[in-house]
Amino acid sequence: MTTQSVDPRTGLSFGPIFPDTSREQSASFITQAVDAYLVWMRTTTQDRARVLEALADALDSHVEELVTLADSETALGIPRLTGEVGRMTFQFRAFALALKNGISANVVDAAVDAPLPQGHPQFLKTYRGIGVVAIYGASNFPFAFSVFGGDTASALAAGCAVVVKAHPAHPQTSQRVFEIAQDALAKAGAPLGLVGLGHGFEFGATLIKDPRISAAAFTGSRTGGRALFDLAVSRPNPIPFYGELGSVNPVVVTSSALADSEKFVGAYLDSLFMGGGQFCTNPSVLFVPADSDFTSQLADQIARRSATPFLSEATKKLHDANREVLLIALKGEVLAGHAAPEAGFFSTPEVVIVSAKDVSGKDALSIECFGPTGVVITYSDASEVIEILSDLEGALVGSLFANVTDSDVPVLLDALSSKVGRVAWNAWPTGVSVTAGQNHGGPYPASTSPLHTSVGLDAIQRFLRPVTYQGLPSELAGLI
Amino acid sequence: MTTQSVDPRTGLSFGPIFPDTSREQSASFITQAVDAYLVWMRTTTQDRARVLEALADALDSHVEELVTLADSETALGIPRLTGEVGRMTFQFRAFALALKNGISANVVDAAVDAPLPQGHPQFLKTYRGIGVVAIYGASNFPFAFSVFGGDTASALAAGCAVVVKAHPAHPQTSQRVFEIAQDALAKAGAPLGLVGLGHGFEFGATLIKDPRISAAAFTGSRTGGRALFDLAVSRPNPIPFYGELGSVNPVVVTSSALADSEKFVGAYLDSLFMGGGQFCTNPSVLFVPADSDFTSQLADQIARRSATPFLSEATKKLHDANREVLLIALKGEVLAGHAAPEAGFFSTPEVVIVSAKDVSGKDALSIECFGPTGVVITYSDASEVIEILSDLEGALVGSLFANVTDSDVPVLLDALSSKVGRVAWNAWPTGVSVTAGQNHGGPYPASTSPLHTSVGLDAIQRFLRPVTYQGLPSELAGLI
Repeated sequence: MTTQSVDPRTGLSFGPIFPDTSREQSASFITQAVDAYLVWMRTTTQDRARVLEALADALDSHVEELVTLADSETALGIPRLTGEVGRMTFQFRAFALALKNGISANVVDAAVDAPLPQGHPQFLKTYRGIGVVAIYGASNFPFAFSVFGGDTASALAAGCAVVVKAHPAHPQTSQRVFEIAQDALAKAGAPLGLVGLGHGFEFGATLIKDPRISAAAFTGSRTGGRALFDLAVSRPNPIPFYGELGSVNPVVVTSSALADSEKFVGAYLDSLFMGGGQFCTNPSVLFVPADSDFTSQLADQIARRSATPFLSEATKKLHDANREVLLIALKGEVLAGHAAPEAGFFSTPEVVIVSAKDVSGKDALSIECFGPTGVVITYSDASEVIEILSDLEGALVGSLFANVTDSDVPVLLDALSSKVGRVAWNAWPTGVSVTAGQNHGGPYPASTSPLHTSVGLDAIQRFLRPVTYQGLPSELAGLI
Repeated sequence: MTTQSVDPRTGLSFGPIFPDTSREQSASFITQAVDAYLVWMRTTTQDRARVLEALADALDSHVEELVTLADSETALGIPRLTGEVGRMTFQFRAFALALKNGISANVVDAAVDAPLPQGHPQFLKTYRGIGVVAIYGASNFPFAFSVFGGDTASALAAGCAVVVKAHPAHPQTSQRVFEIAQDALAKAGAPLGLVGLGHGFEFGATLIKDPRISAAAFTGSRTGGRALFDLAVSRPNPIPFYGELGSVNPVVVTSSALADSEKFVGAYLDSLFMGGGQFCTNPSVLFVPADSDFTSQLADQIARRSATPFLSEATKKLHDANREVLLIALKGEVLAGHAAPEAGFFSTPEVVIVSAKDVSGKDALSIECFGPTGVVITYSDASEVIEILSDLEGALVGSLFANVTDSDVPVLLDALSSKVGRVAWNAWPTGVSVTAGQNHGGPYPASTSPLHTSVGLDAIQRFLRPVTYQGLPSELAGLI
C-alpha cells in the first residue's frame, strides 16, 4: 500500500507517493529510538528545554512553506493553518518553560525518626520519560495534533523518544515538518533517532505491538482508536494508551443568553462549522429554550452558509454515513446551507432540530457527526436537559450559556461536569488553550484515560514514570 | 459456591460459611454506592478527612479482636498483624491530613490578556472522585491491602464510593473490619452504601463488568490480576485498572557490603522469610560476589530456619508449582531449612544458588515464587549482573548494597532504576513506608499502570478525575 496527497477541494491526487513503512523499517526506527531514549532521558531539563526551543524556532521559520503545503492537503485555509503553526511551536516553548520551572522536578521527602508506621528513611521521588512512545497523527490538526504536535512535545519534554505514524490525509506536511525538525534536532545536539516517522495503516499496528514501545497517544476516530487501544492492552506487557476517540459535546443555552439571538446564532454557526465542523470540541448538541426565536434565526442564517471541504474522502464518507444514521434516529427538521458541489469532498452545512420530548434513547446522541452537521434540541424545562445529559456518553467539553442568577445554573453545571472534562461558561467549546489549567480529556470515549489531559502542561504527566530512591546518600544525588 | 475460613497451621475449616454474593446483591451494592458517591463527592475535603479519622479510631479500638481473628485465618502472627492494623489506620489518618493540606485542591490558572496562542480565559482545574471503585482485597495483608486498606483509603479520600471483594483467605477478618467500619461510617454521617463488601470469585468478575464501576484496584496474583485487567479493558467503556500483579525484586550486593557477612546473611533471610516469604517486595533474586563467604554463611544459617505457614492452601499450591518450575529452570544448588510439617500448609524455607554464568534466558527469573523460596546468583563481574537485570521483567523495588565509592555503583543504580519503581540503598526491599515520596509500582507486571503508586499519598491520584471550569464567574465558585 502507498499514500499520496489528495486535494480535498478537487479530489485530485498530487505529489510524491509514500510507500508504507515496512516491518523492518519499523523495527529499525524503534531500535534507534530506544538508543536515543537512553541518552535523552539522562539529559538535564535545561538541555531538553533548549532543544524544544530550537525545534520551535526552526518550525516557525518555515511557516509560509508549511502552511501552503498543508492547505493543499487539508483545505483548512491559510489563516487557520498559520494560527495552528503558531500553536504547534507555542506548545514546544510552553513545555520548555515548564521544564525550566520544574514541572518534572524531584520531590524530597525527608526522613522521619519515629517508630513505625510514622517513621521512615528519606525518599527522593524522581520522574523520568517512560520510554519510546508511539504517536498517531490526527487528520484535523496537521500541525498541533500531528508529527510535532502536543503529544510529541509533551513526550519529548518528559524525556521520551517518539515514533510517529503520519496521518494519510497530510503525508507531505508530515514529512516536511519532520525534515525541518530532524535538521533542528541534529543541530541542537539531540540524539540521532529521537523521533521517527512512518506511513501506512500496517505500520500503526506494527508499532503498537512492538514490546519496546512503552506508551501510545492517539487522536482520531472511535473505530481506529479503539482498535489500537485493544492492541495496546492485549500485549503480553500492556502499555498506557492515551486515546481521544471522539466526543459529542453538549452546549446548554438558557433564555437569558438569547437576548441578542441574531448574534448568538451567528456565533453558534461559526463554532459549529469552524474547520468544516471537524473539531473534536465541536458544539455537537445544542439545547435551546423552545419558546425562543433561536430556530427562526437559525433558518435564516444557515441558508447563507457555504459548503465546506472535508479533510479527506475518508472523513467525508464516515461523516455522511453517521449523518444518515443520525437523521433516521432523530427524525428532526433539517435546516441546510448552500448545497455541496459535486467535485472534491464537500458537505452541505446542516442542523437537525428536534424537541427534547422526541429524543428517546441515548444511541442517537452517541453518534459523532465529524463534519458540518449540528443537532439542536429545543426544551421547555431544564429537567428535560438534565435527563438527556444523563444519557450522554463522556465528552471533552460542555458549555453553559446563562446568567449567574439563573435558577437552573447549579443543576446544569452539575449535570455537565459529571460528563465532561471541561465546562466552559458563556463560551463556545471550540478553541482549546494550551495552559496549565487546561483539561482536554473526559470519560470514555472522550478519552481512554479519563484522568489525563492531552492538551496543556499536565499532558507531560502521561509520559513521566516515577522512580523513588530510598535512603540515597547525598554524594550519589548527582547520579540520578 | 461458598467461602469458609481455614486455619493454615492445621488445614482445618472453621467459623461461618459465607455464600457467594449473587448478581442481584452485586447490582444492589453498586446502586447504593452510586447514590452514596453522588453525596460523598460533593462533601468538603474537611468533612471527608473527619470521616476517615473516625474510621481509623474505630478500627484502632478493635485491634486485639481483629488481630486474633486475622491470625486464626492467616497465621501471620500477632506482632506482625498488630503492626498491620496500625498501618491500616495510619493510612486513613495520612489521607485525612493530606486532604486538609490540600492534596486534591483546585488549581487556578489566571486569565492572560494577549493574542492567541498565549492569551486565554481563566481556568479553574478541579479534581473529583472518578466514581464507584471496585477493590479486590489481597491475601497477604488482611488489613493494609484488604477491605479498608490503602486502596479503599485513597479512593474514599478522593471522593469515590467503593465496593470490595473480600479475599477468600480471610473472610471473617474482612467481614469484621467491614462491620466496625460501617458502624463508624454511619456514626460519622457518611452516606449509606459508601462501601460495599461481597464474597466469591464470580462476584469479582460481575463487579468489574458493571458499567457503573469507574475504576478498579487489585493486588494479587498475575493470573487473577490479568484476568480482571482484561475484563476492565474489554468493556464497552474501558476503565482504569490499577493492578499489582507480582514482582521479582532484584537485590545487588557488592563486596564492600559483606564486611560482616554473618550479620548480612541473617538480615537477608529475615527479609526473605518475612511473612512466610509472602511479600510482594520480597528480595526475590539476590546477586552476591562469587568470591565471598556469603554462600557458606547461608548454608550454615538457613539450616536453623523453621518452616513457615502459607496464607492458604491455594497460596501453597501456587508456590509449590512455581518452585518446581524454578528449580528445573535454574538447575542450581538448593540450601534448605527445617522440613515442613505434613499438617497444615507449610513450606520448607529454601534458597537456590546458581552462578551468573549459568543463568540463561529471562524465563526462569520471571517466575515469582510467592513464599519462602529465594534465588541467589553469584557473580564475578558487575557486567554479569547488568546483563541479567536487563532481561528481568518490571519490578516494584530493587536494592543496592554497596559503598558510595564503589566504582560499579553508577551502572548498577542505573540498571536497577530502569526496571523498578523504587530503588533502596543499603536497605532490604521489604517494608514499604506510607509517605509522600513513596512509589509502589513499576513496569508491568509490577503494575498494570506504571505511572501510579498504590502506596503512599500519591495513591489518591489514581482516583481523581480532573474537571476544568473555563471562565467561571467568581459568584459561582461555591457551586463546584
